[in-house]
Amino acid sequence: MNLRIPGPTPCPPEVLSALSTQMVDHRGPEFAAVLERVTAGLKRAFRTENDVLVLTCAGTGGLEAAVVNTLSPGERVLSVSIGEFGKRFAAIAETYGAEVTRLDFEYGQAADPGRLDEALTTDASLSAVLITHNETSTGVTNPLRELAEVVRRHGKLLLVDAVSSMASVPCDVDAWGLDVVVSGSQKGWMVPPGLAFVSMSPRAWRAHDRSRMPRFYLDTGKARESAAKGQTPWTPAVSLFYGMDVALEMLEQEGWESVFARHQCCADVARRGVRRLGLELFADPPFASNTVTTVRAPEGVSVADLRTALRERHEIVLAGGQGPMAGKVFRIGHLGLVTEAEVQAVIDALAVELPKLGFVPPVGIGSSPA
Amino acid sequence: MNLRIPGPTPCPPEVLSALSTQMVDHRGPEFAAVLERVTAGLKRAFRTENDVLVLTCAGTGGLEAAVVNTLSPGERVLSVSIGEFGKRFAAIAETYGAEVTRLDFEYGQAADPGRLDEALTTDASLSAVLITHNETSTGVTNPLRELAEVVRRHGKLLLVDAVSSMASVPCDVDAWGLDVVVSGSQKGWMVPPGLAFVSMSPRAWRAHDRSRMPRFYLDTGKARESAAKGQTPWTPAVSLFYGMDVALEMLEQEGWESVFARHQCCADVARRGVRRLGLELFADPPFASNTVTTVRAPEGVSVADLRTALRERHEIVLAGGQGPMAGKVFRIGHLGLVTEAEVQAVIDALAVELPKLGFVPPVGIGSSPA
Repeated sequence: MNLRIPGPTPCPPEVLSALSTQMVDHRGPEFAAVLERVTAGLKRAFRTENDVLVLTCAGTGGLEAAVVNTLSPGERVLSVSIGEFGKRFAAIAETYGAEVTRLDFEYGQAADPGRLDEALTTDASLSAVLITHNETSTGVTNPLRELAEVVRRHGKLLLVDAVSSMASVPCDVDAWGLDVVVSGSQKGWMVPPGLAFVSMSPRAWRAHDRSRMPRFYLDTGKARESAAKGQTPWTPAVSLFYGMDVALEMLEQEGWESVFARHQCCADVARRGVRRLGLELFADPPFASNTVTTVRAPEGVSVADLRTALRERHEIVLAGGQGPMAGKVFRIGHLGLVTEAEVQAVIDALAVELPKLGFVPPVGIGSSPA
Repeated sequence: MNLRIPGPTPCPPEVLSALSTQMVDHRGPEFAAVLERVTAGLKRAFRTENDVLVLTCAGTGGLEAAVVNTLSPGERVLSVSIGEFGKRFAAIAETYGAEVTRLDFEYGQAADPGRLDEALTTDASLSAVLITHNETSTGVTNPLRELAEVVRRHGKLLLVDAVSSMASVPCDVDAWGLDVVVSGSQKGWMVPPGLAFVSMSPRAWRAHDRSRMPRFYLDTGKARESAAKGQTPWTPAVSLFYGMDVALEMLEQEGWESVFARHQCCADVARRGVRRLGLELFADPPFASNTVTTVRAPEGVSVADLRTALRERHEIVLAGGQGPMAGKVFRIGHLGLVTEAEVQAVIDALAVELPKLGFVPPVGIGSSPA
């Protein structure tokens, strides 16, 4: 099966095999060694000297950890949203009592640093900003460095959803001044889902000390205390740590610059291929994500039928649209374990199946390179 | 390694091998089929017609889910605690603003239904009761059926920590009238940690509708909605579901009554062996747990040294004491994947190592069966 969704991504055989390792005492020396190696590898990947905690939960649990560990009920925060995951981040903050002001951008567009600056200038009572680095629902990567610069200039706390960006596209936590950054094992890391990673800057820890949102299972303070003893506060998903241990070694052997370049190449194959077929990309081109390509469903073509045809006749699994995008787009995932050939196979299969579903490419398409 | 701690337990090769299965779309038909089979198997194991939701988190996350999905800030609840996990359950409820009244029993003792009745009679404003079924910190199994009967008679909501009991000792959710019941994959289920199971009765769902504690990641309402579509609200730990799928089949093939009998036999070997060595059991005998045997450290013997000796010379890993019990007891885990021979190996190793550490058995010990 060519699993081309934006996570979980396929995992290398080495990682899958590591998952089969027998259990150890999670409070013993073997697990402590794994936790230490994984944490050190994550810090290198995050490019940070900040603490990085590993929590046993999905990426959404990591986002909740970012919120409840730094904010308080009644606190005024700015949500910068460009899609479904931006909305989710804001919803979590609201659930725990934050007063959320929304700076929403049109689906398919990136967030504009100028408008962020304006929003923070207009309302000085905002104390924190929530931003999605890579929005998989629309296939857009935000200009995080520029957005972070604005947040830094205003002296606000910056919480970043880097669940699907980190390990696939550059995300320099320290250089860009990101306070809380969340990622998840099932994305660029090439590991099954179940672990979330949360980095916290000294400024974030100060916010943690002041924060009054309730937290227990997702308390990063407890995670930091336990990590100092080579443990986690609650029983960790040991098998997934084994997987991360191997995956980090593989990714570092490939080299992070090569990993990013591979994602860029795969994304180029997807975007070029889609355009050549006469299809329309959903994302604003300069901000099109290197992790997932979102394609507008051609007039009259059912996304459900297209996905079924690809699955049944080509063993290719694509993602549909989320929320308001359901039925309007389909998405080609190309992050984690992915090669250009696997992405090209998707383009080839689309070329076969789309015409059967009634798609007629615009005049002049099909011969010249786009 | 003979891993004899009260979880994570060793996993059968069939389960470990299933963990290596490649990823699938967590919103596609393959995962839906796994989720359906696992949920059905859990319902049979819980002996319930109630909804059983699977959350990607540790058992502690499951306990938090039990609390935040049914209670409200300011609500008055009774914590029935016999050890560290009872304290944890209460701490979670307090963290989220519940007003907790404590009915604590001495470590090593079970909770007394009479005193529970008294506590509920004395204070009619209590609306819910938190009980640990099997307290691994002390090695005591509570008489849950009797305790639940009292709670039912008073018409209170009953939240049960069955993290380490379910799948190892009988726990009849419907017959005993348990409203919310939590278990975790790394215990009797013989699967690595990372999944929690939460069953909710119709009464618990009514409490859910009224409940005002904040919840997002651990919202069982969202989990129920998604489950109806063969999905989970957030990306699930797919590999651990694969493991559960295989483990449930193995456990059902063995038969639940045989599984319980095996735990009973292993516990008997542990308790008899410990007594024959002249050591003292910590748990009140009629309530000694079939999942873990807690042993008082003999005068002058260091638990740390004993654990090191067993690990280094016998490849046996025992657990130490938790919280106030640290240094005072050691614990022999015998739940999940366990045979009488593996437990006997612990007894044999103790017989070799204890004398080296200065242990002199009481007069008359060493020849006659206890």
